Amino acid sequence: MPTQATPLLVSTAGELREATSALLEDVGTGDRRASLGLVPTMGGLHAGHAALAGTARRTDDVVVASIFVNPLQFGDRADLERYPRTLDADLRLLGESGVDVVFAPTLEEMYPGGEPLVRVSAGTVGEVLEGAARPGHFDGMLTVVAKLLNLARPTTADYRAYFGQKDAQQLALIRRMVLDLNIPAGIEGVPIVRDTDGLALSSRNRFLSVAERRAALVLPRVLQELRERSLDGLPLDLAAGRARIGAADGVELDYLDVVDPLSFDAVVHAADATAPALAVAAARVGAVRLIDNIALSGPA
Amino acid sequence: MPTQATPLLVSTAGELREATSALLEDVGTGDRRASLGLVPTMGGLHAGHAALAGTARRTDDVVVASIFVNPLQFGDRADLERYPRTLDADLRLLGESGVDVVFAPTLEEMYPGGEPLVRVSAGTVGEVLEGAARPGHFDGMLTVVAKLLNLARPTTADYRAYFGQKDAQQLALIRRMVLDLNIPAGIEGVPIVRDTDGLALSSRNRFLSVAERRAALVLPRVLQELRERSLDGLPLDLAAGRARIGAADGVELDYLDVVDPLSFDAVVHAADATAPALAVAAARVGAVRLIDNIALSGPA
Repeated sequence: MPTQATPLLVSTAGELREATSALLEDVGTGDRRASLGLVPTMGGLHAGHAALAGTARRTDDVVVASIFVNPLQFGDRADLERYPRTLDADLRLLGESGVDVVFAPTLEEMYPGGEPLVRVSAGTVGEVLEGAARPGHFDGMLTVVAKLLNLARPTTADYRAYFGQKDAQQLALIRRMVLDLNIPAGIEGVPIVRDTDGLALSSRNRFLSVAERRAALVLPRVLQELRERSLDGLPLDLAAGRARIGAADGVELDYLDVVDPLSFDAVVHAADATAPALAVAAARVGAVRLIDNIALSGPA
Repeated sequence: MPTQATPLLVSTAGELREATSALLEDVGTGDRRASLGLVPTMGGLHAGHAALAGTARRTDDVVVASIFVNPLQFGDRADLERYPRTLDADLRLLGESGVDVVFAPTLEEMYPGGEPLVRVSAGTVGEVLEGAARPGHFDGMLTVVAKLLNLARPTTADYRAYFGQKDAQQLALIRRMVLDLNIPAGIEGVPIVRDTDGLALSSRNRFLSVAERRAALVLPRVLQELRERSLDGLPLDLAAGRARIGAADGVELDYLDVVDPLSFDAVVHAADATAPALAVAAARVGAVRLIDNIALSGPA
């Protein structure tokens, strides 16, 4: 692993602005505009986040990652409380991924007047699938992402923010927010990173027992088979997929659906379909809620 | 009246950016950062809007006014349809007020995908008083203001936007949105402009008959008396004020309340109160809904 400088750790909006301005000034880009890449995270980082940071590092002159466990997007207090907080390991991983600045604000810095009165609302796309399972989650997520996009935005440089394709509905909503509210930032989706057994990386995977983890593999397997059938032009049998997930030991299916990747409307995926479609799944495995998805055409 | 150049009229976000960048580049401010002032309007302009533009002109190097009748903030289709559209007169007034650029986007430019899915939500402050009378109004208003603040934002200059104190709850919500979502713009409130008879200027006043207008004057009179009693340290009798408004010919009171000017929570205004308080009123006069307000201490 290459030796990397530890990222500069800042905790206030002012420090963040100062740090990024100074770095952007030092960037020699000739006639090209400099660019800043933002990687918003809630910590508990893994190789999926490293892929986000690495993509930003290859694309942008200055890379900022944020670490903030946003209480607004947790409906379940227990889930918020046990969400992993691993700052030292996170800083190491971000340093190794070439991140320049880590913005880790306090709750007080982000919500100085307590919970915000004015929020971003996800509308109907925020009410289905993950939104149905976690009421208020997407409003809270969009609100904090809007804040972070505003806080990290450079004055003169180009600006992009990176989000994982694993949270596909989140990514679709952030793309929609940026369009609907004219937020001047590019939104880049980064492919899912999977462990060698196929399980999509997630901060919550650490809470799975060995047996639960083995059972959870039914999710990527069913999704992968749907993709293969789709690529082969064969009809999909979602009912069979749902039954298979539900039959796995200790796995409780929430949903398995095929949706439009932008609107998240359920679509009937015909064997000869040319429109992009996404198979999305969620299940509870023991005490852990897992989500996964796969594109039914194009790159996985 | 001084002869003024007609403002540059643009209708797309790209034209707006180009026009303001060019003007800001031409501004010679020495070491001082240049500044841009934005005056969002829905057209139907009057001297109250001229006061907004004039304040911006005295403060900022480049002044942009926007004219966009935002359907999102009209619950009542009839109100939307009869809302005055007076572009030629509006451009003249803005030119005389020293506005440099007028941004008058089409519906398609502002909402290319139809109504936005992701919106700004006003929360509890948006549910009382005007929010109670006009469900969804403040969400629609905040959504379009967020869009306009993002669209007109300069890259390097300081940035302020101007709103009338007449729409006091709107102003409070915009201030709150900018804080809660970290939108990098200063928000400036500009005092109410009144006709010589005391009626607060409004685009809707033109729909009042002579008799209705005479009756409507009960609103500013009751508010002014509340302020005078407050300044004299006397207790306020809101019930008497409500009865007086309700007794005026053809006037139907909606509310008369004393509120905190930031939270819009109802407050009991003690005679020796030191906290700022606002008396707010709304009434229907014939077919026209009018609102007005007055500060109970400090400048009117």
